[in-house]
Parts: sequence; C-alpha cells; structure tokens
Amino acid sequence: MKKTSKLKHLLNSPQNPDFIMEAHNGLSAKVVEEAGFKGIWASGLSISATMGVRDNNEASWTQVLDILEFMSDATTIPILLDGDTGYGNFNNARRLVKKLEQLDIAGVCIEDKIFPKTNSFINGEAQPLASIEEFCGKIKAMKDTQMDEDFIVVARVEALIAGWGLEEALKRAEAYRQAGADAILIHSKKSNFNEIEAFMKEWNGRHPVVIVPTKYYSTPKEEFRRLGVNLIIWANHNLRASLSAMQKITKQILIDESINHVEGSIASVEEIFRIQNAEELQEAEKKYLP
Amino acid sequence: MKKTSKLKHLLNSPQNPDFIMEAHNGLSAKVVEEAGFKGIWASGLSISATMGVRDNNEASWTQVLDILEFMSDATTIPILLDGDTGYGNFNNARRLVKKLEQLDIAGVCIEDKIFPKTNSFINGEAQPLASIEEFCGKIKAMKDTQMDEDFIVVARVEALIAGWGLEEALKRAEAYRQAGADAILIHSKKSNFNEIEAFMKEWNGRHPVVIVPTKYYSTPKEEFRRLGVNLIIWANHNLRASLSAMQKITKQILIDESINHVEGSIASVEEIFRIQNAEELQEAEKKYLP
Amino acid sequence: MKKTSKLKHLLNSPQNPDFIMEAHNGLSAKVVEEAGFKGIWASGLSISATMGVRDNNEASWTQVLDILEFMSDATTIPILLDGDTGYGNFNNARRLVKKLEQLDIAGVCIEDKIFPKTNSFINGEAQPLASIEEFCGKIKAMKDTQMDEDFIVVARVEALIAGWGLEEALKRAEAYRQAGADAILIHSKKSNFNEIEAFMKEWNGRHPVVIVPTKYYSTPKEEFRRLGVNLIIWANHNLRASLSAMQKITKQILIDESINHVEGSIASVEEIFRIQNAEELQEAEKKYLP
Amino acid sequence: MKKTSKLKHLLNSPQNPDFIMEAHNGLSAKVVEEAGFKGIWASGLSISATMGVRDNNEASWTQVLDILEFMSDATTIPILLDGDTGYGNFNNARRLVKKLEQLDIAGVCIEDKIFPKTNSFINGEAQPLASIEEFCGKIKAMKDTQMDEDFIVVARVEALIAGWGLEEALKRAEAYRQAGADAILIHSKKSNFNEIEAFMKEWNGRHPVVIVPTKYYSTPKEEFRRLGVNLIIWANHNLRASLSAMQKITKQILIDESINHVEGSIASVEEIFRIQNAEELQEAEKKYLP
Repeated sequence: MKKTSKLKHLLNSPQNPDFIMEAHNGLSAKVVEEAGFKGIWASGLSISATMGVRDNNEASWTQVLDILEFMSDATTIPILLDGDTGYGNFNNARRLVKKLEQLDIAGVCIEDKIFPKTNSFINGEAQPLASIEEFCGKIKAMKDTQMDEDFIVVARVEALIAGWGLEEALKRAEAYRQAGADAILIHSKKSNFNEIEAFMKEWNGRHPVVIVPTKYYSTPKEEFRRLGVNLIIWANHNLRASLSAMQKITKQILIDESINHVEGSIASVEEIFRIQNAEELQEAEKKYLP
Repeated sequence: MKKTSKLKHLLNSPQNPDFIMEAHNGLSAKVVEEAGFKGIWASGLSISATMGVRDNNEASWTQVLDILEFMSDATTIPILLDGDTGYGNFNNARRLVKKLEQLDIAGVCIEDKIFPKTNSFINGEAQPLASIEEFCGKIKAMKDTQMDEDFIVVARVEALIAGWGLEEALKRAEAYRQAGADAILIHSKKSNFNEIEAFMKEWNGRHPVVIVPTKYYSTPKEEFRRLGVNLIIWANHNLRASLSAMQKITKQILIDESINHVEGSIASVEEIFRIQNAEELQEAEKKYLP
Repeated sequence: MKKTSKLKHLLNSPQNPDFIMEAHNGLSAKVVEEAGFKGIWASGLSISATMGVRDNNEASWTQVLDILEFMSDATTIPILLDGDTGYGNFNNARRLVKKLEQLDIAGVCIEDKIFPKTNSFINGEAQPLASIEEFCGKIKAMKDTQMDEDFIVVARVEALIAGWGLEEALKRAEAYRQAGADAILIHSKKSNFNEIEAFMKEWNGRHPVVIVPTKYYSTPKEEFRRLGVNLIIWANHNLRASLSAMQKITKQILIDESINHVEGSIASVEEIFRIQNAEELQEAEKKYLP
Repeated sequence: MKKTSKLKHLLNSPQNPDFIMEAHNGLSAKVVEEAGFKGIWASGLSISATMGVRDNNEASWTQVLDILEFMSDATTIPILLDGDTGYGNFNNARRLVKKLEQLDIAGVCIEDKIFPKTNSFINGEAQPLASIEEFCGKIKAMKDTQMDEDFIVVARVEALIAGWGLEEALKRAEAYRQAGADAILIHSKKSNFNEIEAFMKEWNGRHPVVIVPTKYYSTPKEEFRRLGVNLIIWANHNLRASLSAMQKITKQILIDESINHVEGSIASVEEIFRIQNAEELQEAEKKYLP
C-alpha cells in the first residue's frame, strides 16, 4: 500500500484513535517505525530545535525538506509533515505539495497563521490568524495540485490557541472541511481537555479530527476514544527524551573525564551499525566489488 | 579568541590531556557547549547515523557541511570535523578546507583511507590504506589552502586498525607530521590501551597526539596523561545516549497509548524553547516590529 | 580591500555614477568581473529564471544562497544581492544578513513589499506595500546584525511602481534613510526618466541613490550623472542575452541535425576550461599528486 | 509515456539516429524542450562551468542533483545525466540511481574512470581507467537498484580517449553490455570520425550506441546514420553559446555605459516572464486569493 493510502486509512479507520509519533531525522524516524508505530509526525519544533534554530521559519522550507528526504528514505510508514503555514501563500503551499509527493511524504498539516509562524506554545501576544478566505484558498490550491489522490492535507485550527473561542474554531473547521481538507487538527494549549471536548461534541463526527495532547497529556486515552478523535500525535517526545539523555551523559563524561561509567547504559556502536543496516552493504560488497 | 586559535591551544596546551565531545547537529552541539566542554567533535558516524544512512560517504560532503553550518552557528567553541578521507583526492580536500573556514569550523581530521570510506569499527576485510605519498600531498594541499594560519589539520593514522603494525603507524605519523599536519590521531580498535601505549612511547612527544578511546574505554584517564596524549575525543556518546533514550520512550508511549507516564522524565517544552533562545526573539520583536 | 568596502566606495564615490552588472551563477559572475565591472547585481529575476521557476519566492532563500555561494567564490568584486523582501519579517532578514556575511556577499537590497513578492514589472493589480514602520524595523534589525561595519543594506522604494506617487516615495525614502539604510533604490517601470528625475530633484543628494533603468533604457547616461545618481544597475541583460543565444543555437542545431555550422560562432571548449581555471588544477596535480 | 520509456524508445528506435541537446539549468532545459528536441543531456562540464567550478567533481553530487531537480521539474522530455563515475564506487552509484528516479530523471551515463574524474578533453597525462570488473560491478548494482524497469544506464567507454586502442574499447563495451548496460557511449577526442567508425563496424549493432561529436563536429550526419549510431549528444553548445553572448553583451554595456544599444538584440523581459509561465500564476491568484 502507498504511504499516502496508509495515512488516509489511519485517519478514516473505524477503530479509533490511532497514534503517530514524532521524529526529526532519519534515525528517529527509524526508531518510530521499528517500535511499531503506524506513522510519523515530522515536527516543525523538533526539526528546528535539532538544527539549533527557532520554530519561526528560521530554517528555509527546503532545509526542512532536506531532513524529510532522509526520513522518508529511511522508513516505510507514512510521514505527516508539520508544515507550518505552508511557508508563504497558496503558491508556496502548492509548490510544497509537489515536492512532498516527490519525496513520498504522505501528507502535510498546515495551520491558519501568518508566515513567518510562531510556535503555538510560546507565551506572549495572541498570535494573528490568517483570514478564513485566504486559508481556504490555500487548501484548495493544495488539493488541486496533488497528483496522488490519497495525499493528505490536514487543516490545523489555531482559534482556541489564539483565544478566539469555540464558535470561531467550529466556523473555521467547517470552512476548511468544505474547502477540501482531509482532516481537521484542533489545537489547544490548555492543560485540560475541556475545550477540545466541547469542540468534539459540537463537531459531532463531521470529518476526521486530529489532536496533539502535549499540554493536556494527563487526559486518559479513553476520553479521546469516547469523543471520536481519529488520530493522536505525540508531538515532540523523541526530541525531548533525546535532549535529556544528551544533557545528562555530556555532563557525566565531563565530570568523569572518562566514558567508562556510561558505556553500559547507552546503545552500543554495533547497534548504530545495525540501525544503519551496515550488514546489507557488506553483502553487497561481496556481490558487486571485484 | 578565534575558534581556530582555541582548538590550536587545546592541542598544544601543556596541561594535557584536554577533551572534546561528539555532537551531530545544532542541538547536540549546544548541549556540549553548555555542559562546559572546550570543543566539539563533529562525528562522521554520528552525522550519517542521524541521517539514516551509513558511514560510507552515502551522504555527500555538502550535506555534511549543511549540518556543520547549523552546528557552528549555534556555538562559540571550536568544532573539529571528522572529515573522512577529505571526500576524494587533494583537490576535494583543499576545497573542503576553504568551505570549512567559511563556516568558522576550527579544523578537520582526515584519515589515510580510500574514498568512499568504511567505518573503522566495521568488521570484515582489512581496509586498504592510501599511499603515504598521496596522503602527504593531500595534507600539504590543505595546509597551503587555509587562509587562517591557526586552522587545524589532523592526520589520522589507520595503520593499527588495518593491521599493518606499529612500525608502519610510526612511519606514517612521522611522514604526516613532516607534511605539515598539526596533530596525529592514532586510532585503535583494541579493547585495551596496549598498542596506543606502544605508539606513544616511540613517538615520544614529537608532535601533538589525539586519541579516540571508544573501544578501550575502560583505560583510566591517568594512563592517557602519563603517556602525554594531548587531546581525547569522546566520539559518539551523545548519539548513542540519544538513540537509547528515543528507543525507550517510543516503546513506552506505544504500549501506554499515553504520554502521561513519560512527561516528568524528559526535557520540558520550555527547555526546548530555552535552548533555542526563544526569549531573544520575543525581545527583538518588541524592538523591531511595529 | 574587503568586498563590502569596495561596494561602499562605489556607492559613495564622488565620481558618479558607477555601474554594476547582473549575474545569476558562478559563470556569469566571472564574465562580469573579467569584463571590468566593479560590482555584480545578483538578480532575483535572473536567478529564479535560470532555475526555471518564477520570481515569486518559489525557490527558497537558501536555494538562492546556494547560487550566491558559487558566485562569491568565483569572483573578487563585490556582489549586491537582490534580496526581495528579505524573505519574510525582520527576523528572516537579519538571519539573511548573517548568512550573507558568511558568504562574503557585500550587501543586500530589500524592497518594501510583502512576502512572497511579485516581480515589479509584472502587470496586474497594484502590488501592496509593506507599512513604513514595519520596513524601518526590518532595516534596523539588519543593520544591528551585521558584523562588518561596511556591509551594505539598500532600501528599495516601490511606491512609484505601485502607483502611490512621488510624495509617498520621498516619505518612504527619507524614513528608510533614517532607519539606517546605506542607500535608496528608487524604482520605476515607466519608459521615460520623468518620475525618477522628479524624485532626484526633491531628494537633492541627501543619501546615495541607486537606479535600475531596465524600462527607461533609452535615457542618456548624462542625465543620470546630471541628477546625481550614485549607482546604476544593469539588471538582467546577461540572462536575456543568454536566453536569446540559447534559443537561437538550439533551433539551428535541431534543424541542421549538425553542429558544424555553429562551431565557429560560439565559445570554444578550451575557453570553458580557461574560465574554469583548469590550468591551476593541472599545476596543482604536479605539486600534490605522487 | 514515462520519461524513462521515452528515453528507452529514443535509444531503441529503428529510425536512427536521434538527437539530444545539452542543458545545464531549468531555463536551458526549457529552451531545449520548446525547440522540439526529444531529450536533454545534463552535461557535467556545463553544470560545473555554470557554477564556476571545474569538471573534476568539485561540486558535490547532491549539488548537481539540486540543479537536476529544477531541470526535471521544468520539462516533460527525458533527461540523461552525465553522471561522471557515479560519484564513487558501486554503492554511491546505486544510491545515485535511487535519487535520480525520485527526481524523474530518465537515465544516467557513467564512465569507466576513477573518482574524482577529469574532463575527457583536458590535455595532459593519459587518465587512468577503472578496471573492467569494478565497472561491471557498478553497472550491475545500478541495474539491480532501479525500481522503474525503463530507467536507463549508459556505460561510457573511455578507452579510445585514454589511448588504450580499439580492441580494449570493444572488450570493455562488450563487458558492459553483458553487465546490463542499456547502451554504450563510445567517446573520442579525435577531430575525425575514424576511430568511432572502426568501433561501429566491429560492434556491428550488438547494442545501442551513443556518441558525442564535440571534436569531430564536421562529420556529416549521413555518416552517423550509415554506421548505425542510435543517439547523438550535442554536449555543451547551449553553455558555449550562452558564454559568448554574455561576454559580448557585458563588454558592450561596459563600454557604452548604457543598455540602449543592446535592448533590441536580446530577449525581452516579457519573454523571461513567458518562459517562467508567469501567466499561470496570475490566473491562479484569481482562483485562490481572496
């Protein structure tokens, strides 16, 4: 099955919710696939953080795609890209679709904010939203551009984050659905599930819904199921686990002036070779070298 | 002080040995600097592994430099690149020097193998070595190219790894020193320090020496000091810690179908923002936006 | 002299006007330098056209910089980048400055339009302009970021193109000057020099002025001198000459099914080798190869 | 029809020879297609020259692919890449095939030289050749890797260039054919057709043959037809026409200090917009913008 069809299936499966896990480079993407997840969230926050830049379109969109290319080549499960605003207007967004299809990326999620974007969890001024009309034009342009009919465009509604309220969120979700989006991502930065719950009740299963419970992490999964959420994104946890682990080991080695104590607690060099599939190359060398 | 001068100082400091720590992207580079290390080892194994490809020049040299650019921009301590064979002949290697200086990379280590390279720890056939004459020409070309007199070229001797013995290792090290290398990296895949020790005794402080104790990790640091090692590279431990941590958390979240249990054990989203220096942008927005 | 200082000198020389010529890749940049021009205009229209995309930020800003890197490496005269809107807001623009300095680009011209930009000569709706306040903040952020005090930021005024009139153009030019721009580029798409002339008279030498006479090409150069124009950009003529020549030869070879008739009328293969400096490599091979 | 199938058809058509024309970026590729050619030769010499670097793998293979991506996106006719030695060993070459298929490149020609390569027309020492066994292994690896059965691998025989004689050329051509190459490119730097003619007679139509008459340009096309050549590459003429045209116009504008005299002799700005398909974007803006 094509990667796009796999992602479409995840979004429309009667047995909900399904789960996809964050990755930010070829290695973490492989980790997600090997563990058994059915899909990958290519997080904008995570990818920018690994580059050492901010989640404000400081890296160019093609630099993000260079990372995605390695992620896609390294895996067989579908990747959904966190595509910010589509990196500009409708024309940039439809160009993005073309390049993503070339890289065998299964879909992209765009959010109704203004380029350059600000991360939704950054405190500060309420972030401005794109006009509904402009964002619907962007969705249409993207859907008109895709060559593979199963390529997925998810429309992310930032109205709750921006403090515009439930009514605006529902209005936007409905407009994006009618514009052709394959699913709605309703985002919240509250530490409880209340505003998502209210949305889900009013939405009432009109169209697939994706959520990102980074802030309301303690909500029991039964709640998500009960309300009919279709897809849940664990959005940045590989990055965060990776950062903690690196900070810890780096400090310990600095203090120890030795790697003797850490050797047993981390992946072996051979495990790196295994995940790189070094063995296949050794076999191939026998076959193709004189 | 320039990054190049800092690295030169590390190699020539009377208070030996100094230590540098592996990083493979902007984030891990920042972790190394924040911890207090004085330098960064940009590992070829680690960079290829994070891309999901093998340590056999599957990524192009400019793809490696794209990563290095982010690492260099994110940090103020010197970076020493694990530059494989220089990615071709003397002409490729001198071109590399030019581009590294542009990126403010402090130095590069090249090894006396054949392009495309194989990781030194991969079992299998003894890997062929470059001829001494060819490798010395490469070193000369690199040293003649650098604009900054403090840019560092480290010559890595693979004779022990390839099983050619101590005498060959010494012969090569001396030839590379005379060709202009700023330091010799003597590499070993033995689990004890014996062959490095033998080399150091014969070498007798002729020129700075760098080692990579990945396999002889249990050797006490006092041994390295006693023998006059100048610089020690902890070559891949951030990558390996990162991989373990990601494998573990990914599996747990898959099983839990929840992030509730992992939330407390990993870096917070705010910590990501901090390391990205999100705050500076918020200040700048006040200054530069209407 | 640094490239930045050379460009600064061109803008502030008492012997005006000076001239810079368009290039769009390493080869055309070399052609401009070899001919004797003192500077290069890295045209956004030309670079996008050679890529086969539109002048609407379809190529990412880092893809443009990849081209610039080759142009800068190939030449010793200063390059002024046609930097569109700075590829986003003040934060994107100041990041651009940092990367341009790394590539030894002497300066950048930004225009007071909205990202993604439209070419000024495309007919159609009047294109919206950035607010003065927003654009001044961008200029300030760029000037505050540069490390080399001679790096040049040119502010391009699109008010005449957009049909907002002379008064608005002057108001904007003055605001951009006060915000720290090193020069004002006043742009016009009229086929005569009248509106530029009116601007120059009112401007009265307050600050260096750059013009692009693509549309008012028939204006005698004495006019430009009389009015005190500091720098003139021949903005796209290498691209256009190149396109004509390629269209012509391609058609002829198609019809002839032979290259016999064209051989004498085009640069020889040896001329390609000369401009690539193949000879230096042959010398270097003697020096560095066994 | 797929681009790969179109190229396969060109190579195997009974109505021989067919012709393909050099291009080196998106623009020249469009020129070749618009003129009516059935295929494009992505010349290594031309691409490196436009970058301002030498034809000795100074640009990385991914930098070449970045150019190819724009060329492929801009056209619908097949592109045959001048792939040098495959940029390393069999593993680099098979990785290349994977990436080329992703970019919808129809085929690649590899030559039996050593990485990094030297242009075949550079005078100097006879250039060393790859061993037959090694090169056949590379061809096999490439053919085993391709997903699209019509993807083309052309094996370029450098034996005549290197002065190894007709017998060696025939031996190599036959070995490469048996290893799975889809066609043989027999290369010569003689100014007459004699050695190609001798090869063709002995070869006697065993397998498709490609030639590059850059040096024996005066040979009448009837000769090529008579001897059964399948495909002729006009290898660098757009580059050379472009260079001449740019040198000429740049000098004239420098002397004139005016563009008035050149305006009528070069493509108009509107012609640039046309070839960029600016009109489609204007239509799309009406459809997708508010």
